[in-house]
Amino acid sequence: MRVAVIMGSDSDWEVMQKGVALLGEFGILPAVTIASAHRTPEKLRAFVAEQEAAGTEVFIAGAGAAAHLPGVVASLTEKPVIGVPLAASLGGLDALLAIVQMPSGMPVATVAIGGAKNAALLAVQIGAVHDAELKRKFHAYRAEQAEAVARKDADLQDKLAGK
Amino acid sequence: MRVAVIMGSDSDWEVMQKGVALLGEFGILPAVTIASAHRTPEKLRAFVAEQEAAGTEVFIAGAGAAAHLPGVVASLTEKPVIGVPLAASLGGLDALLAIVQMPSGMPVATVAIGGAKNAALLAVQIGAVHDAELKRKFHAYRAEQAEAVARKDADLQDKLAGK
Amino acid sequence: MRVAVIMGSDSDWEVMQKGVALLGEFGILPAVTIASAHRTPEKLRAFVAEQEAAGTEVFIAGAGAAAHLPGVVASLTEKPVIGVPLAASLGGLDALLAIVQMPSGMPVATVAIGGAKNAALLAVQIGAVHDAELKRKFHAYRAEQAEAVARKDADLQDKLAGK
Amino acid sequence: MRVAVIMGSDSDWEVMQKGVALLGEFGILPAVTIASAHRTPEKLRAFVAEQEAAGTEVFIAGAGAAAHLPGVVASLTEKPVIGVPLAASLGGLDALLAIVQMPSGMPVATVAIGGAKNAALLAVQIGAVHDAELKRKFHAYRAEQAEAVARKDADLQDKLAGK
Amino acid sequence: MRVAVIMGSDSDWEVMQKGVALLGEFGILPAVTIASAHRTPEKLRAFVAEQEAAGTEVFIAGAGAAAHLPGVVASLTEKPVIGVPLAASLGGLDALLAIVQMPSGMPVATVAIGGAKNAALLAVQIGAVHDAELKRKFHAYRAEQAEAVARKDADLQDKLAGK
Amino acid sequence: MRVAVIMGSDSDWEVMQKGVALLGEFGILPAVTIASAHRTPEKLRAFVAEQEAAGTEVFIAGAGAAAHLPGVVASLTEKPVIGVPLAASLGGLDALLAIVQMPSGMPVATVAIGGAKNAALLAVQIGAVHDAELKRKFHAYRAEQAEAVARKDADLQDKLAGK
Amino acid sequence: MRVAVIMGSDSDWEVMQKGVALLGEFGILPAVTIASAHRTPEKLRAFVAEQEAAGTEVFIAGAGAAAHLPGVVASLTEKPVIGVPLAASLGGLDALLAIVQMPSGMPVATVAIGGAKNAALLAVQIGAVHDAELKRKFHAYRAEQAEAVARKDADLQDKLAGK
Amino acid sequence: MRVAVIMGSDSDWEVMQKGVALLGEFGILPAVTIASAHRTPEKLRAFVAEQEAAGTEVFIAGAGAAAHLPGVVASLTEKPVIGVPLAASLGGLDALLAIVQMPSGMPVATVAIGGAKNAALLAVQIGAVHDAELKRKFHAYRAEQAEAVARKDADLQDKLAGK
Repeated sequence: MRVAVIMGSDSDWEVMQKGVALLGEFGILPAVTIASAHRTPEKLRAFVAEQEAAGTEVFIAGAGAAAHLPGVVASLTEKPVIGVPLAASLGGLDALLAIVQMPSGMPVATVAIGGAKNAALLAVQIGAVHDAELKRKFHAYRAEQAEAVARKDADLQDKLAGK
Repeated sequence: MRVAVIMGSDSDWEVMQKGVALLGEFGILPAVTIASAHRTPEKLRAFVAEQEAAGTEVFIAGAGAAAHLPGVVASLTEKPVIGVPLAASLGGLDALLAIVQMPSGMPVATVAIGGAKNAALLAVQIGAVHDAELKRKFHAYRAEQAEAVARKDADLQDKLAGK
Repeated sequence: MRVAVIMGSDSDWEVMQKGVALLGEFGILPAVTIASAHRTPEKLRAFVAEQEAAGTEVFIAGAGAAAHLPGVVASLTEKPVIGVPLAASLGGLDALLAIVQMPSGMPVATVAIGGAKNAALLAVQIGAVHDAELKRKFHAYRAEQAEAVARKDADLQDKLAGK
Repeated sequence: MRVAVIMGSDSDWEVMQKGVALLGEFGILPAVTIASAHRTPEKLRAFVAEQEAAGTEVFIAGAGAAAHLPGVVASLTEKPVIGVPLAASLGGLDALLAIVQMPSGMPVATVAIGGAKNAALLAVQIGAVHDAELKRKFHAYRAEQAEAVARKDADLQDKLAGK
Repeated sequence: MRVAVIMGSDSDWEVMQKGVALLGEFGILPAVTIASAHRTPEKLRAFVAEQEAAGTEVFIAGAGAAAHLPGVVASLTEKPVIGVPLAASLGGLDALLAIVQMPSGMPVATVAIGGAKNAALLAVQIGAVHDAELKRKFHAYRAEQAEAVARKDADLQDKLAGK
Repeated sequence: MRVAVIMGSDSDWEVMQKGVALLGEFGILPAVTIASAHRTPEKLRAFVAEQEAAGTEVFIAGAGAAAHLPGVVASLTEKPVIGVPLAASLGGLDALLAIVQMPSGMPVATVAIGGAKNAALLAVQIGAVHDAELKRKFHAYRAEQAEAVARKDADLQDKLAGK
Repeated sequence: MRVAVIMGSDSDWEVMQKGVALLGEFGILPAVTIASAHRTPEKLRAFVAEQEAAGTEVFIAGAGAAAHLPGVVASLTEKPVIGVPLAASLGGLDALLAIVQMPSGMPVATVAIGGAKNAALLAVQIGAVHDAELKRKFHAYRAEQAEAVARKDADLQDKLAGK
Repeated sequence: MRVAVIMGSDSDWEVMQKGVALLGEFGILPAVTIASAHRTPEKLRAFVAEQEAAGTEVFIAGAGAAAHLPGVVASLTEKPVIGVPLAASLGGLDALLAIVQMPSGMPVATVAIGGAKNAALLAVQIGAVHDAELKRKFHAYRAEQAEAVARKDADLQDKLAGK
């Protein structure tokens, strides 16, 4: 599965790399770029066109404040675009609203503030619809998640029991 | 493409039917149900399991207030889930936060408050990744959207010119 | 009195343990578990059923962000459910709204953001309705609270008097 | 089961009566009063004391704006107090925060903005812990709720099928 | 002075025309267009480039919800861009944040929610810096504003005096 | 001039003491107490009654979260009550709304979040209406404030001039 | 007692006249003016100076949106200034914050959004500190308020009793 | 080009100096002052009048909390005024609303919370309309911004490639 990850600033990398790392766990090595919707619109347009031509199925875009990047990416491609609001100010509420409240006709699939990992998982879910191997991996990931909860619960029971 | 649309209350139909109608324009006749995450959890679980078994690729869930439905659907399927916050109180801010702020590991692809049409389009975009016919239709839809803007602009120019 | 305390993640323990400790002061040793509404719905359902069968009178559930856990617990039991919003993002406003704004028919008794101690006290108050010993202890707790305010005031008067 | 319902103004009755009516469906005829935490503190204190002496198990208090009534009732009784935020301004956010954010030591079991019916149900759930008849009625209410969802779904299916 | 006014949808015209009319009072007949940052990015780019080439000194862009239009216009021109948040949802708070919180390097001069008239006045103020005729007109406008306040006060005094 | 300062918790002293100190600069040594509207309502009532009897002209009350203290003090006295919202959670927005949004008939003169100094100054302004000495001191304070701004500006000019 | 009431626009009169009428019930005929902090700063300064010279003890200023009027009045007088936030947009939250969050040194006694009547009462309370007649009237007003609550409660009891 | 920068407190300098420094990069040495709209209204009026007489084309004003300074400056000059909301409380939301929501007739060109650099750039853009040298510099600045994005992207590619 081909995924492209775009962020507007190198300061967004700290959060976005968690999504890139998680994609890696699913065997997906995304194209990653820093490109600004406002400062480098041509670079952004070129990157999106190039990625789409190369077969990218899902775009992930992370941005903070007046976060236009995911919406602008959505206008440049017909592929699904996942938006990650980043908490640069007001706890990320500004970025959330600027990403999720897209006008009718141009959706961005928005995840939680700082939710780079969930963006990666959503991309995997989209890819898994037609990719049996990815589907298998996602199923295993979910199972592992459930087991992690069970392990943490077991640890807590031990602690409560004074072990 | 198979899509399932779930809402928690019949009062949600007024908004959600716009998404169902738009899916229809793409030749998609979704399974639609009213099922509550809290009042009829078994019915919900059965519906999701049944739909997933029947080949549903994307779930759309709309809910207002403490909108748990999309997240609960996400926990019941490994398919992508699109959440539509509905404005039942506080302008829909409560529903938006209750849908989009899902914890790491369990994403819901959230669209705008009241964004049933965008939920439909996002489902189409996901389906179009592996469905050439849907891809063609979505491309035509986008072109028509651009033309509609141009027509409205032409109307405005006429009005301004006193025609 | 039997109380069960549920949290979705081990990171919630830091706050929730204050409620568990306070229950302990009333001689209540609650069943405590980590179980996720989304990642381990079966585990959660089993725990709630088991606790209810064992005579649990009140459930306390703490969660952050799109905090669905208390509402999902409420859908799994007919006992009163107390929800504790945890401040994982946006100062806890998202968790508060996702817990308190439950739809008609499925209440969650919501306490303050981070209010694990108040959740414990509310459980005690519910239990005290039919438990004279608990009623006596709660009465004493209230009296001690009032005395603590008086002591702090006395300390302040000393400080102001330069003692 | 004895329940008392308090509101600060006659304008609150429009919402609060829904809770009173729902209590009636469970065979509970609550004591109802208009009493202001600020304008008639003595009347409020007298009412709460009188009700508590008469065996009231749960207090329900509804208020809007800087909604102090539920918290003040909580300070006057050791019984559980359920608070209903009313939407007089700012969509009810002010009332919600003024009720739910009670300081440690003095909980108010808060329900949704305008949630008078949920307040009634929560009172019933508390009463049902030690009242088998109420427990049976609440169980039936929940079942009826689930059936209502199923009926509405059936109606929708008919409508979609063009019946 | 040349000004261009852009809006993303014909539904924005109701508010934006107030700004156009006010520009007219200053003898400015702006170029007006409907062009969407997302649906018709090429049309938007062409319009901005054409207007800039024709000597436009200030751009005014109005948009609601995830209001990207003013920021995207700012990325397409080096002229000052004035953004008008429109109240399509959440009272316009989403549009305000999506316009005003632009990242460092790409300002949008934001006015009040629905403030199309203030956008026009700000454009006039910018033009007046180097246009003595416009400066004179703006000075007269300000004086007339003050007189309008004085007239309204006189009317009020008459009313209070029972005239 | 007699002023009384009330806070609900010793943790509020850190902020409130700034107001007490500022009152001291005006020669006012206020009565100060810790008394809770909820935990020690009798103590609070007694303090307010005693202070009012002793000639207190203004009450200042500071509180955080669901900040009921100022409103409850207002219900216990006919003297002006100044409320200071304290930032215990949500940046103090909850306390602000719980203090300022008092129902018709029972005002609290609310100052900024954390504004203990402004509460003191407002008390002084009220006292100065009928106290020539206080009026003189307040006038001097205002003048000194203006001078402080001028001094800071002078320092900045020096810094900018490289001195 | 002399009170002056200022509003920035004639559209504010609808709310502010409730405060003027209530002052009238206390025998206070305030000076009332429309004067804008921004459009007619000289008129405002002249009015405040004139009123202060004439013995005005309290100023009341109402304003909406970026409500600067109360703060600007506060800078022009050393008398107490009461600010009334008016709900012109965002439910009045903008006006509330723009009035209450005054910087240290320059308080505005803020009342609830739309709280013109409470502004009047606060003015009366300030006046009553040194005016026995006003004190007596305010005491009577408070008593009447309590009686009104009692009457409304009696009406409700009648209604509930089916009378 | 002549620009004047005003702030209400020396604590605002930390943010505002970034704008002053950026103006310096464009060869603009602004007049800078500390002057308070409330504490030193005369000083403020004198500064604005003096600057306007000296040919200042744009004013930049930064303020926090109930940020009246930019609006008051706007009332004192007919030149464009740029407002910078500073985050003193509530994340700067109070300052943003108090600056941007100016009433019709008196605009303030508002930039992002803490956006002193964008205020500087907006001033430059306004100046560049009639200053070819400034226009050239702004064009170069924009190009350099785009290059900075490209360099950061190149650095990221190197890091991802393990160089």
